[in-house]
Amino acid sequence: MESFGDRLTEAMERKSSCVVAGLDPRTDALPDEFRARAGRSRADAAQAVLDFNLHVLDAVAPHCVAVKPQSAFYEALGWEGVRAYGETVRAARERGLLVIGDVKRGDIGSTAEAYAEGHLDLFDCDSVTVNPYLGADGIAPFLKRARAGKGVFVLVKTSNPSSVELQDLDCGGGPVYERVAALVHAWGESSVGRSGYSAAGAVVGATFPDAAARLRGLMPRAVFLVPGYGAQGATARDCRPCFDARGRGAVVNSSRGILFAYGKSGGVGWAEAVRDAARKMQEELETVRRA
Amino acid sequence: MESFGDRLTEAMERKSSCVVAGLDPRTDALPDEFRARAGRSRADAAQAVLDFNLHVLDAVAPHCVAVKPQSAFYEALGWEGVRAYGETVRAARERGLLVIGDVKRGDIGSTAEAYAEGHLDLFDCDSVTVNPYLGADGIAPFLKRARAGKGVFVLVKTSNPSSVELQDLDCGGGPVYERVAALVHAWGESSVGRSGYSAAGAVVGATFPDAAARLRGLMPRAVFLVPGYGAQGATARDCRPCFDARGRGAVVNSSRGILFAYGKSGGVGWAEAVRDAARKMQEELETVRRA
Repeated sequence: MESFGDRLTEAMERKSSCVVAGLDPRTDALPDEFRARAGRSRADAAQAVLDFNLHVLDAVAPHCVAVKPQSAFYEALGWEGVRAYGETVRAARERGLLVIGDVKRGDIGSTAEAYAEGHLDLFDCDSVTVNPYLGADGIAPFLKRARAGKGVFVLVKTSNPSSVELQDLDCGGGPVYERVAALVHAWGESSVGRSGYSAAGAVVGATFPDAAARLRGLMPRAVFLVPGYGAQGATARDCRPCFDARGRGAVVNSSRGILFAYGKSGGVGWAEAVRDAARKMQEELETVRRA
Repeated sequence: MESFGDRLTEAMERKSSCVVAGLDPRTDALPDEFRARAGRSRADAAQAVLDFNLHVLDAVAPHCVAVKPQSAFYEALGWEGVRAYGETVRAARERGLLVIGDVKRGDIGSTAEAYAEGHLDLFDCDSVTVNPYLGADGIAPFLKRARAGKGVFVLVKTSNPSSVELQDLDCGGGPVYERVAALVHAWGESSVGRSGYSAAGAVVGATFPDAAARLRGLMPRAVFLVPGYGAQGATARDCRPCFDARGRGAVVNSSRGILFAYGKSGGVGWAEAVRDAARKMQEELETVRRA
């Protein structure tokens, strides 16, 4: 079996990159030409988002291992937006990119199975983000698809300020997120591939590097999906604890920092600005993870 | 301001009901005539689901205060399913039912704002279920809409067996779910209406009645959305601790028990079986909550 962890590790080696470009297309931040079209109707907005994404995918594909479309920004445009989401996933895979559907779903039994059908089978994402609050019932249907090379990233320690309210509660000598880490490690045991990484990854924010270092030890088989780089304040160096000793085991996301690198209005050279931002992030992180 | 808690409380009094019908339309469980159409294509499946839902809404409207469409079963049918979801919400509101979008979303800042736009503004649900794992950052954008009478139900103690893995971790003299209850109570403080109930409700499973009794005391301003009745094993009596002393403050969901009350094949009388199941549940719960 080739696990999702194997597929991601192999892509990182082949492309010399651990960069994930987040596709969070806020319509009011699109380059002028797309924003003007987006203002006409919801269907036009969804089409403008899709056209924008296709240009972005062409620009970033050489420098990224994966893209991470954020479902919320597509759902905000109704079913037309969800159609654009599906087309974006398909276009990314056609360009050889792995796709992490950022959906943070979490529900029980047969409902989680329906989410897995929708997002891993029908939309055909390679993996999705999932929420651990309901326990194993909510994760198992996704991991059933590990044999098909699919995976999940379970929220463990997120990058936002209020993540401390629940995730950092002390429960018997350690925070909740370390107990979740132990669950993730157990959930991944049956899908460890030849790379040493499983189908059960973890979301670990770069904004808390000390926590990341401990979590790396607690989840040796989990690839980390690392938010917080760039716009949220974390540097490439802050991401170092997320990698293993060989510089593997983590991919780092940037959304606004890549997608809207052209600034306010866009203009003729906007796609080059996007490409340059992805390349610069790739170079910074390669230096850090190979050190 | 009329809070979402006021709107729900008023509807419970007016209709003498605390029943929520869950709209979880698994295509393979639809009555024969709909299932046959659903097998032809995904677009046909979505249309069959919508047509089925319209009949169900007519059948249950006299006996329910609200319906709760489960997003997963619509997303499993792609964008066509999401379109049917939106049409279902609209049709429910036209029939005077409150709508709880069961989406269990949870994300940070601007992303949570996009989810709120999609589900409370565009789809125009009266409330949605949300996940607390990311803390207040993920809840605030939904509660910003409390002035418009909108609300949330925060997952506190869910009805599924593996809910214990994270929710029941002991953190300093009490389980995680009681700490989440304290957060929900605080989040609701600014939106308490004349009924005494706020815009910040809580999901509390009927399958853990002792926990529900304690949670009722910890969240006196939160309406409970109670899963677990019927197919999951809880009785009307098990739901009693979720209500306040006056029999208010909770609504009880049944999905399969109402929606698929006709059994395997349906037949001419299937809609009457659905209506009867809703009425029977209404009668059982009115007896218990008025006692």
